Amino acid sequence: MTDRIWTAALVVIGDEILSGRTHDKNIAQIATWLQVQGIRLAEVRVVPDVEERIVEAVDALRARNDYLFTTGGIGPTHDDITVDAVAKALGVPVVVHPQARAMLEKYYTGRGQPLTEARLRMARVPEGAELIPNRMSGAPGIRIGNMFVMAGVPHITAGMLDALTGTLEGGAPLLAETIGCWTAESEVADILREAEKAHEGVQIGSYPFFREGRVGANFVVRSTDPAILAGCLDSLVGALEAAGYPVTRGEI
Amino acid sequence: MTDRIWTAALVVIGDEILSGRTHDKNIAQIATWLQVQGIRLAEVRVVPDVEERIVEAVDALRARNDYLFTTGGIGPTHDDITVDAVAKALGVPVVVHPQARAMLEKYYTGRGQPLTEARLRMARVPEGAELIPNRMSGAPGIRIGNMFVMAGVPHITAGMLDALTGTLEGGAPLLAETIGCWTAESEVADILREAEKAHEGVQIGSYPFFREGRVGANFVVRSTDPAILAGCLDSLVGALEAAGYPVTRGEI
Repeated sequence: MTDRIWTAALVVIGDEILSGRTHDKNIAQIATWLQVQGIRLAEVRVVPDVEERIVEAVDALRARNDYLFTTGGIGPTHDDITVDAVAKALGVPVVVHPQARAMLEKYYTGRGQPLTEARLRMARVPEGAELIPNRMSGAPGIRIGNMFVMAGVPHITAGMLDALTGTLEGGAPLLAETIGCWTAESEVADILREAEKAHEGVQIGSYPFFREGRVGANFVVRSTDPAILAGCLDSLVGALEAAGYPVTRGEI
Repeated sequence: MTDRIWTAALVVIGDEILSGRTHDKNIAQIATWLQVQGIRLAEVRVVPDVEERIVEAVDALRARNDYLFTTGGIGPTHDDITVDAVAKALGVPVVVHPQARAMLEKYYTGRGQPLTEARLRMARVPEGAELIPNRMSGAPGIRIGNMFVMAGVPHITAGMLDALTGTLEGGAPLLAETIGCWTAESEVADILREAEKAHEGVQIGSYPFFREGRVGANFVVRSTDPAILAGCLDSLVGALEAAGYPVTRGEI
């Protein structure tokens, strides 16, 4: 059984990540969400708030993936240039989306605040875009073709992902099982390699750690096929224990 | 004064980041370290453990930056393919580095353990490489030309960065000052834009938050020139307070 593999790429836009000021949380958040949708995150690029760099990343990644996500740069300030960059990459003009405008009007007048020109920037979209609802603030995300333009603030991104859950076509989810071993990964490298080779389409990741004065490693076995996954896991556990390395089911 | 700007790119190698299993810490760690060296992190790519994807990222980024860092994929297991990919990108063979071999021998025999073939994998380097010492484990990082091949485990990466501190040529460090304001960034967007425009080479980043039931934002002013930075900061604070927005010096 070889299912078609669905892939997505992510462009993280923001000087704050590249300066080290902000620790990105969206890569892990979006990666985890995509797994559940049966879509594999194939590549991430972090680019600065510079139009041509955003355009370049969007152009390179959207053609070769089923989906492209961006995070960051969709707020009301001068450094929020994602919409313009995406429109440029797609060769379409930027327009004010009437529904986005209405949402912002409702949000701000409900709080007794004016809809200023800066705030209205958050209603600008590449022509042809639909909105991704955002229950955390008035500003929506943007869907255009296979692209999803999302907020940079992680809990707002989370709300937009919720709104998209179940709406994207994907393949069989990549299943994963983890086992742990109090041993140096270098001691069991051959066993891992053999187990991966013997089971088609399986990937085994090795994640060493140093804890309580001892070395150990977790081994993550991944496959889209539950039977192959179980078979690989059993033969890996068997081989490790036969070689004298006791195994913990689940992550240590 | 316009100093030459030194830039670096980073390639994060690892399925564990793209699957969402592991939250990357190296982007922020390396970004922060580079700032101190007077080098700007210009772009990051996260790629899977797939040779051609690593080669592609390395090729694209090393030509247009002063320095290129990679993290991940230099351990002893079958999924550790960074050295081979980097050698391929540079068009050189992979060789066993005698000093790396000696370091590993010393490390393992000191612990009463054999230097297996898997462990010896960690002494493989692209021909012409120097070693970056790693006091946390026996496996060194690799320096070749303008490239730095580092570990994926963050505290080991940190040790390698320590070893490199002060050895890379950089420019004037990018200085940053932060002020905070309990206001929606959209209310002061024009003030930010004007302050940035009026001060050459300054970047102002706006980082909104929602805390204790109130919205606020931190504004980070960046410049390599301390006098211009101070001037921009003063005029920004003046303009914000004149418009009725009290400012906190430092981050809220």
